[in-house]
Amino acid sequence: MEVIRGGITAPKGFLANGVCCGIKKSKDDLALLVSEVPAIAVAAFTQNKVKAAPVIISQRHIKNSVFRGIIVNSGNANCCNGPGGIKDAELMSLAAAKELGALKEEILVASTGVIGRPLQVKLITAAIPFLVEGVNKEGGSRFAKAVMTTDKFQKEVAAKILIGGSSVLIGGVAKGAGMICPDMATMLSFITTDAAINKAALRSAFKDAVGKSFNSISVDGATSTNDTVFMLANGLAGNKEIYKNSPSYAKFSKALEYVMSELAKMIVLDGEGATKLVRITVKNAKTDNDAKDIASSIADDALFKTSIYGEDPNWGRIAAAVGFSGADVNADKLDIYIGNKKVMSNGAGVNIDKKALEGIYKKKEIDIKIDLKLGNGSARILTCDLTHEYIDINSGYTT
Amino acid sequence: MEVIRGGITAPKGFLANGVCCGIKKSKDDLALLVSEVPAIAVAAFTQNKVKAAPVIISQRHIKNSVFRGIIVNSGNANCCNGPGGIKDAELMSLAAAKELGALKEEILVASTGVIGRPLQVKLITAAIPFLVEGVNKEGGSRFAKAVMTTDKFQKEVAAKILIGGSSVLIGGVAKGAGMICPDMATMLSFITTDAAINKAALRSAFKDAVGKSFNSISVDGATSTNDTVFMLANGLAGNKEIYKNSPSYAKFSKALEYVMSELAKMIVLDGEGATKLVRITVKNAKTDNDAKDIASSIADDALFKTSIYGEDPNWGRIAAAVGFSGADVNADKLDIYIGNKKVMSNGAGVNIDKKALEGIYKKKEIDIKIDLKLGNGSARILTCDLTHEYIDINSGYTT
Repeated sequence: MEVIRGGITAPKGFLANGVCCGIKKSKDDLALLVSEVPAIAVAAFTQNKVKAAPVIISQRHIKNSVFRGIIVNSGNANCCNGPGGIKDAELMSLAAAKELGALKEEILVASTGVIGRPLQVKLITAAIPFLVEGVNKEGGSRFAKAVMTTDKFQKEVAAKILIGGSSVLIGGVAKGAGMICPDMATMLSFITTDAAINKAALRSAFKDAVGKSFNSISVDGATSTNDTVFMLANGLAGNKEIYKNSPSYAKFSKALEYVMSELAKMIVLDGEGATKLVRITVKNAKTDNDAKDIASSIADDALFKTSIYGEDPNWGRIAAAVGFSGADVNADKLDIYIGNKKVMSNGAGVNIDKKALEGIYKKKEIDIKIDLKLGNGSARILTCDLTHEYIDINSGYTT
Repeated sequence: MEVIRGGITAPKGFLANGVCCGIKKSKDDLALLVSEVPAIAVAAFTQNKVKAAPVIISQRHIKNSVFRGIIVNSGNANCCNGPGGIKDAELMSLAAAKELGALKEEILVASTGVIGRPLQVKLITAAIPFLVEGVNKEGGSRFAKAVMTTDKFQKEVAAKILIGGSSVLIGGVAKGAGMICPDMATMLSFITTDAAINKAALRSAFKDAVGKSFNSISVDGATSTNDTVFMLANGLAGNKEIYKNSPSYAKFSKALEYVMSELAKMIVLDGEGATKLVRITVKNAKTDNDAKDIASSIADDALFKTSIYGEDPNWGRIAAAVGFSGADVNADKLDIYIGNKKVMSNGAGVNIDKKALEGIYKKKEIDIKIDLKLGNGSARILTCDLTHEYIDINSGYTT
């Protein structure tokens, strides 16, 4: 696998664009991805019971067999807008479809931004002709920019693999920067590939990669109203079609996992106001679910996150978060490691050099390991610290 | 019921003291409550699976039938200290018992402060003789001060009721100020009464009052390693003994609930860096548990809490927190009220005057109401906002 420059328009036959339609005053807020030929698609949607209108519409459209494009706006989540919101999301797909000579069911839709404000859909429909007119091979970056909300940088990745004699490309873009509370920040990601791949194989590779990337920075059943990952595959690479039992399946899956994991890591690194990346690994829990609950309990704990920000080696907060995770825990067996230092052994603090521990806390990336010694369950979650800047960013978001 | 000045030493026969034994450099850090005559006791302990040593010792001692006192230190939680920690907690009770001429089982123990540092128990045992010597009727306030950690003010309440011709007093003290993350800040409370009350009746009144006060600012099963509420009743008021079926039981219960609720409210108002009090009421959820999950999901959400701080009427974050609570939710039936304004009706935003909404957000106390229209479940939780000062307080707690 080779990492290459570019994003969603790196694979053959994908074009994109991003423009300012006026939802935001002066920043790009409308993006379009187009496949020059019909593509197959897979998707993962939010588990939140309050779903945004574009999620509801895309969940209907995804049942279709082929797709031509994805239209996305930022600045307004089109959520909690009642039947009017549903109509507006549908109108977005319809207007894009019309301009592209496609059916509305062939267009997927996503939105991100403030919840509970009617979407100014007329601004969107008015902009669609020039949005479509401007799509091209260089548009991936403009697309990446137009889907940003509180993101501080664009998130794009692309990778190339060889299948038989054919170059197969995978490209991706993501937006999202609220990893303090991973369950709340809208996370959108769009992945493209020119691979010829059977739909069942694509679905399987996609599901695995989402689990190991985006779902390892988030919490099951606790996602935003708009979270969505879309993937389109248009087959233009000309490779021999990939099936689940093809030798090339593993190669493709690994490259896809790489692309998604890099995007997920960028989301954490762009965590609102974040200054540090924290990797929490839980092992030997009773079950995988227990391990995940423990990792999430630590990752979501405001006291833990502020101690990381303050470079304060207050590891007792980690032990407490393990204890209230709801998972099976035997406090007398609990081991905790910070970096390469064991700070807790069988439930009791280890007398270690405080200076060495402070050195670990001063690093940009911090590893926390929890050993439960109860079973074979394991989990890993990426998170970041909780900072003053987070409060600044989020205390005045709508205004 | 009459609200009176004072705290735990207001009821007859209770003496207290607070001193600096040296765990903290220059602040009081050791407190003692004594009943002049043997008292009965009830308690509520943390549900955290990682329990501090004093919790483990007190859980053993509470099985005893009579009690003489409670010893408490701040500055060190005596948690995650292995068998040495258990021994130290026991030693605290033993040293106090010896000085009071009591059995160690007649002394309850609590600690609060940093987790994972060996307790300097010798400082405590050395201070116990003068701690005991100094107990008196005015010591309630010194006790309240010595149990504080990040608290900005002491928390004391006392109330008087008449039972037959006898004045019965209930006094209480609490420490705790981390309501941003209610599950993590250690909450300690000590309640005294001179009522003559049957133990079963005391247990029942205590359990109800804890549920309606301290447990309504916290999350079941998600408490700190040290959380404890102790209550002593010494019978010195001379009232006719209260049984569960006595006419005076309701009067006593109501006064007890008042004392605990006032203490709980003080904890929220002293939330680390908090500037606003938020009352979240959930009604017509499928079950009471669902209602509690929804209220907690909102109360614990960092994005919601920062929007309260920023006085930014971004109510979409409330809808999203309802959606990811895990409770049964029909998004198309959801109503949300902020103050007296309905902002969401049947899942869609209501077009209301933004100025009026901003006016509500500018108040010191804000009411949020959620109507699920699914059943009869209800819950209420008090919380506060998430502020810059919270980050300041918690990013350097141990250092």
